[in-house]
Amino acid sequence: MAAREMILSAAVCLCSIAAVRLMDLYWDSPSPGPHWMEQESGPALRASCSGHGRVFNDGSDLACECSDCYTGVNCSELQHGCMVDADAGDPTFLEPFWMEHGADAGVFMPSWYRMGYSVKKKGSSPAHKELPLVYVIKELEDSIRELHELVGNAVVKDKYLVIGTGSMQLVAAALNALSDSFPEKPGAVVTRAPCYMIYKLQVDVLSSSKFQWGGDAVAAFEKKAFDPSSVVELLAAPNNPDTSILEPVYKGTNAKIIHDKAYYWPHYTAIAGALDEDVMLFSLSKTTGHAGSRIGWALVRDIEVYKKMFMYIAVSTIGVSRESQLRAHRLIKSLLDGYQNGGSHKARMFDFGYHTLQSRWQTLAEIFKASTRFSIQKTDSQHCSFFKKEVSPSPAYAWIRCEQEEDCHSIFAAAGINGRPGRAFGVSNRYIRLCMIKRDDEFELLAGKLQALVDTELTNE
Amino acid sequence: MAAREMILSAAVCLCSIAAVRLMDLYWDSPSPGPHWMEQESGPALRASCSGHGRVFNDGSDLACECSDCYTGVNCSELQHGCMVDADAGDPTFLEPFWMEHGADAGVFMPSWYRMGYSVKKKGSSPAHKELPLVYVIKELEDSIRELHELVGNAVVKDKYLVIGTGSMQLVAAALNALSDSFPEKPGAVVTRAPCYMIYKLQVDVLSSSKFQWGGDAVAAFEKKAFDPSSVVELLAAPNNPDTSILEPVYKGTNAKIIHDKAYYWPHYTAIAGALDEDVMLFSLSKTTGHAGSRIGWALVRDIEVYKKMFMYIAVSTIGVSRESQLRAHRLIKSLLDGYQNGGSHKARMFDFGYHTLQSRWQTLAEIFKASTRFSIQKTDSQHCSFFKKEVSPSPAYAWIRCEQEEDCHSIFAAAGINGRPGRAFGVSNRYIRLCMIKRDDEFELLAGKLQALVDTELTNE
Repeated sequence: MAAREMILSAAVCLCSIAAVRLMDLYWDSPSPGPHWMEQESGPALRASCSGHGRVFNDGSDLACECSDCYTGVNCSELQHGCMVDADAGDPTFLEPFWMEHGADAGVFMPSWYRMGYSVKKKGSSPAHKELPLVYVIKELEDSIRELHELVGNAVVKDKYLVIGTGSMQLVAAALNALSDSFPEKPGAVVTRAPCYMIYKLQVDVLSSSKFQWGGDAVAAFEKKAFDPSSVVELLAAPNNPDTSILEPVYKGTNAKIIHDKAYYWPHYTAIAGALDEDVMLFSLSKTTGHAGSRIGWALVRDIEVYKKMFMYIAVSTIGVSRESQLRAHRLIKSLLDGYQNGGSHKARMFDFGYHTLQSRWQTLAEIFKASTRFSIQKTDSQHCSFFKKEVSPSPAYAWIRCEQEEDCHSIFAAAGINGRPGRAFGVSNRYIRLCMIKRDDEFELLAGKLQALVDTELTNE
Repeated sequence: MAAREMILSAAVCLCSIAAVRLMDLYWDSPSPGPHWMEQESGPALRASCSGHGRVFNDGSDLACECSDCYTGVNCSELQHGCMVDADAGDPTFLEPFWMEHGADAGVFMPSWYRMGYSVKKKGSSPAHKELPLVYVIKELEDSIRELHELVGNAVVKDKYLVIGTGSMQLVAAALNALSDSFPEKPGAVVTRAPCYMIYKLQVDVLSSSKFQWGGDAVAAFEKKAFDPSSVVELLAAPNNPDTSILEPVYKGTNAKIIHDKAYYWPHYTAIAGALDEDVMLFSLSKTTGHAGSRIGWALVRDIEVYKKMFMYIAVSTIGVSRESQLRAHRLIKSLLDGYQNGGSHKARMFDFGYHTLQSRWQTLAEIFKASTRFSIQKTDSQHCSFFKKEVSPSPAYAWIRCEQEEDCHSIFAAAGINGRPGRAFGVSNRYIRLCMIKRDDEFELLAGKLQALVDTELTNE
């Protein structure tokens, strides 16, 4: 016991924290010593993977998982003629931030952590009292509200908060809730093209008797295709793919709009002020970059809509993973910590994210400046109420138009770049979306291939 | 550095593991020392909560969360006249197993763990190649297959594995997939009463255009209420609530059956052999007791059904929480470890679970033995191929019939017991379900109140 205390003191002294105290806490048990740390500390985890990969502690197979186009045991080989993947929207541009500054957001879960269906500590939303299941960790709810208050992008006062398994589950929950009051069923779900077509895919797969896909919002509105009271409009702003910020097509007090605000954070766009819409969706994927955790949330004004959304999540997945909620809470707390209490002791995630994306956008704009064959979306500097200054553009996606060719996807594919074609956003294949939010090494490969593509054009002129 | 190594050696010597090595791994970073351990190691976490509560490390508020009917800062006060909650099915009877023997199933996730939408390591199911998203951690898939092979409760060879956000998401995914081939839409979803009515609640909330609730399977079949080719039968065996093991009502090669096998594990029932059905659902909640993690899985024979189920999960929640998957993998590995490599060095979860529930059932059977007012479901000893011996009953629920009174729920409520009434399972309120799988202290309170209830009957005779 004395030896144990000696080690304890030395560890505290050396590192200002006490790993041994943690062991003491969780393993004050008759079982033999814990084995998980042995697993966790294999030499492979130390591997740098040549700066082009990561080792995750999923199992016994502690191998490097390489960035796109890198291969080999240590991810040291660049694959010759490899196609750069700019299709998927993995937000791994924030990975280096967490690797360098996220030690306080690491989380340990003992094997007995939160085994029950319900959390006994009640959430802060009063409506929980009437609802059968308490699946939300109160601390996560509190930290999400605090985050919005810090950033000033959404009014949280007098709003109910629904936690979902990613924001796509909340889209389904909101469609289900809002379509209850449709006079005609099935009603229509519309969105302005170009748009995130997973919306359509989800509506099609759900095959609801209450709503079905109604296509482009502008066309539907102009043609008076549907009774406006049987319409829900999905509106992403900034928009995915073109990062535009537009008003809804369907307006008025009876209009049912789901505001997808996934990209309304200071690393992607200038914050114009705190929005106060009836239904607003956000996602951890785009806020902190943790897409794999499947955490989204909705801010909802009306208590009946809130209860229906809650019920949808309670019966479709019996709530949301407690592990993901705990981790989301720790990540958001760590993020907040950079901006609170003076905050100068700690790196700031939104600043890091903004600088990364703004610099990438400059690179891209520079590449395309002299091109007449390709044009990229128009962007302007704007005042950001969060950074309290004029900010340069830092969009999550480049939305490119081929001015000469009709099949933009093939042009880019021939240049070794796999983008997402216009058709996948409900418009023509003259357009292509390129993801700007992946790892640095992946963006560098993309930029190199883009430069070569534009150079060919300029050389040929 | 010398000091650090000294601590390292001493720690290894003392505990055979090295906490400091872990720190070294993750925090070889320019940031100041990690703060999470400080949070994790607050004195409150040490609190025993008088043996009637737990402290979870969700946030700064490290307070005891007490077992039912216990209150106070340290959960030391038994609430006078408290209603025992035997309604919900929290599987916390396994909590002490994990607290004592689950050190190797604890898991640490650094802040940068698996941020992307997709896992780069491919799963073992060949169909993944054609599918757009790889959301499953391969190690989890492997450990689930290994678990079924150990227990011998399901044939995994030539089966596709779908991981879902709890098994209720897989019910929705399977209904969606199987109803595609209905000649008449909406077709009917039926199940034999008494049944788990969350099935019905989910079908109602989903409001699918392809299927709707069709009520009791036996009644529907006898009345020829539906074209059998437009019917999906949901069949839980062992059944929730009455733990019966019955055959489907709809039979034949074209019958579409979803086999809910959540309770087909050796701690709840004798394993009769490896089932080889077309669609079988399982749940981590009932296997290891981790209901909060929302991990379920389906074993599926047909590749087209598999692809549709995968797609449903891919678009409704864009996959399944990586944190929960990692934890599920570790838990299952730890469970397996008790039975493999001789296994005698390690406690065995199914043995622990079986002994707990079998002893509880004996207590219950003893209480009700002399009663004529109440009867409990018939149970018999049976041969279990897993334990390789005759086993006594160890059901997850008691299904009680009030032989004299019509409103069984009120009788039990007056005795201080909140059970789930028959109506919640599609039958009369002459029946009540009592949950037998909560914590020891909660079961003891329940048993005490039941004894008092039966004693009143016997005294009055």
